[in-house]
Amino acid sequence: MDLVIVGSVALDDVKTNYGSVKCALGGSAVYASMSASNFCNTAIVGVVGSDFPREHVQLLEKNKICTKGLQILKGKTFVWKGTYDDPNIAETLDTQLNVFADFNPILPDDYRRSQFVFLGNIHPELQLNVLDQMKDPMVTACDTMNYWIENTRDKLLEVIAKIDIFFINEDEIKMLAGEKNLYKAIDIVQKMGPKLIVVKRGEFGAVAFHQDFSFFAPAYPIREVVDTTGAGDSFAGGFMGYLAANKKFTEKKIRRAVINGTVLASFCVEDFSLNCLKNTNVQKIEKRFQEIQKVIYIADKNQ
Amino acid sequence: MDLVIVGSVALDDVKTNYGSVKCALGGSAVYASMSASNFCNTAIVGVVGSDFPREHVQLLEKNKICTKGLQILKGKTFVWKGTYDDPNIAETLDTQLNVFADFNPILPDDYRRSQFVFLGNIHPELQLNVLDQMKDPMVTACDTMNYWIENTRDKLLEVIAKIDIFFINEDEIKMLAGEKNLYKAIDIVQKMGPKLIVVKRGEFGAVAFHQDFSFFAPAYPIREVVDTTGAGDSFAGGFMGYLAANKKFTEKKIRRAVINGTVLASFCVEDFSLNCLKNTNVQKIEKRFQEIQKVIYIADKNQ
Repeated sequence: MDLVIVGSVALDDVKTNYGSVKCALGGSAVYASMSASNFCNTAIVGVVGSDFPREHVQLLEKNKICTKGLQILKGKTFVWKGTYDDPNIAETLDTQLNVFADFNPILPDDYRRSQFVFLGNIHPELQLNVLDQMKDPMVTACDTMNYWIENTRDKLLEVIAKIDIFFINEDEIKMLAGEKNLYKAIDIVQKMGPKLIVVKRGEFGAVAFHQDFSFFAPAYPIREVVDTTGAGDSFAGGFMGYLAANKKFTEKKIRRAVINGTVLASFCVEDFSLNCLKNTNVQKIEKRFQEIQKVIYIADKNQ
Repeated sequence: MDLVIVGSVALDDVKTNYGSVKCALGGSAVYASMSASNFCNTAIVGVVGSDFPREHVQLLEKNKICTKGLQILKGKTFVWKGTYDDPNIAETLDTQLNVFADFNPILPDDYRRSQFVFLGNIHPELQLNVLDQMKDPMVTACDTMNYWIENTRDKLLEVIAKIDIFFINEDEIKMLAGEKNLYKAIDIVQKMGPKLIVVKRGEFGAVAFHQDFSFFAPAYPIREVVDTTGAGDSFAGGFMGYLAANKKFTEKKIRRAVINGTVLASFCVEDFSLNCLKNTNVQKIEKRFQEIQKVIYIADKNQ
């Protein structure tokens, strides 16, 4: 296994200015693994209820995602209901944890020997639990959200101190650092331990900060932003999938990983749920990669 | 003369989280011409009152800006008073037009033969007036603001139809187009006539859209954003100054012009008024240019 992804698996009700879906496949682990699977052998670790439609598992498997670590518990699958007026701001209407409340991620033995692991946005305690199960991984990464920053800060700091890559939204890193200036906030969080901080800025792209370099990427321009649910997870999945496929954690690969993450996020937002992401392939990704490369290329001084 | 810049010349009272200044040199034409003068022979066209301190004129002249077109009228100089809580959002406390209410830009004869002209944020009627005086310029550009979009829309559309480069803030282009999606807004405004649209996104950088290409640049990372007054004008001044110095309006020069604009804006915000901009030089600009080049560089696929 190249990459193990742990996180939520959900059935989402989402309403945006483009329409709505009910009981649609979602969750951080689903968006991230569907994105990563374009690049590498990916395994998903999560929990669903007995109501979880068989077709969703089949979709994951069709995309060569290993579902051996997807637990099926008696009860209902995690439900998230949200609405967007501004495509960049989700308003949560309802959260029903259901079987997710009892999630206890247990990694199959071959997963534990994976060199790359991505801990999607779940309770930091569970993230630590998964980290403990890993046997000498090359690169560990996590995402988080404002809820954990506010309510389980100490546990989150434990996670951040242990992982290599920390994915976080711009507003959330400012909250975590208690600092309004992004670059000063990054300075503060760098001291908490992660080798690489990747700040997700939504429609404004992403920035990656390492002590030796930084990299700024714009978002891929999208004219019809249908639903931004899962965009951050898709970004992280594309990023981690690319790194895991290359089995490297170098500056050059990190720069390309940011762009690949950006491309996967751009597919995610073009339709509800996994509707667009499930139709991506290497050719489509490469095309957008090259388009981004063109829009940030600076000509030589003497041309 | 390489570049003629028309706009406001002001005495500003500004308060930010870093402190405050009173009666400080400001105005769109001042920020733009001080920025442009790093690259090319620049002329400023504006109006001041008899109270305008002699030292401010000396500062412009010390920076080799021609002040022949700076009218001195009996009365008081234009005054703007503003405050910032969020460094990106100016709250206007007071505007006293004074002699600026009677501004009638008259270009000296040698200015009219300039190949580049930048019409800073003033009444579109005055922008048209200046355009009429120009004799076969190579590149014309203008900036504007929400006030003109709302109150003198028809006149503004006349200007936009005539100029080559349209500088505008992200919120303002959305307002002008009546469209919330940036890229669709750009599509709409492109049909209004300008060859190049440059959208200023503040701390998120800038994008340039031409029918044949687009270019995305991040902002230069600044840890102490003291005062953002004049940042957009400094951006446009740096951009236009670089183009005028090269006497070219090509894709390659436009890409580098965006970065040079970004660099000048970054110096602008590091101190109040012209305090930081007045100490820039080619070496300092080139250093930041190269730093931006590094943070957007993508390594080759096979490295």
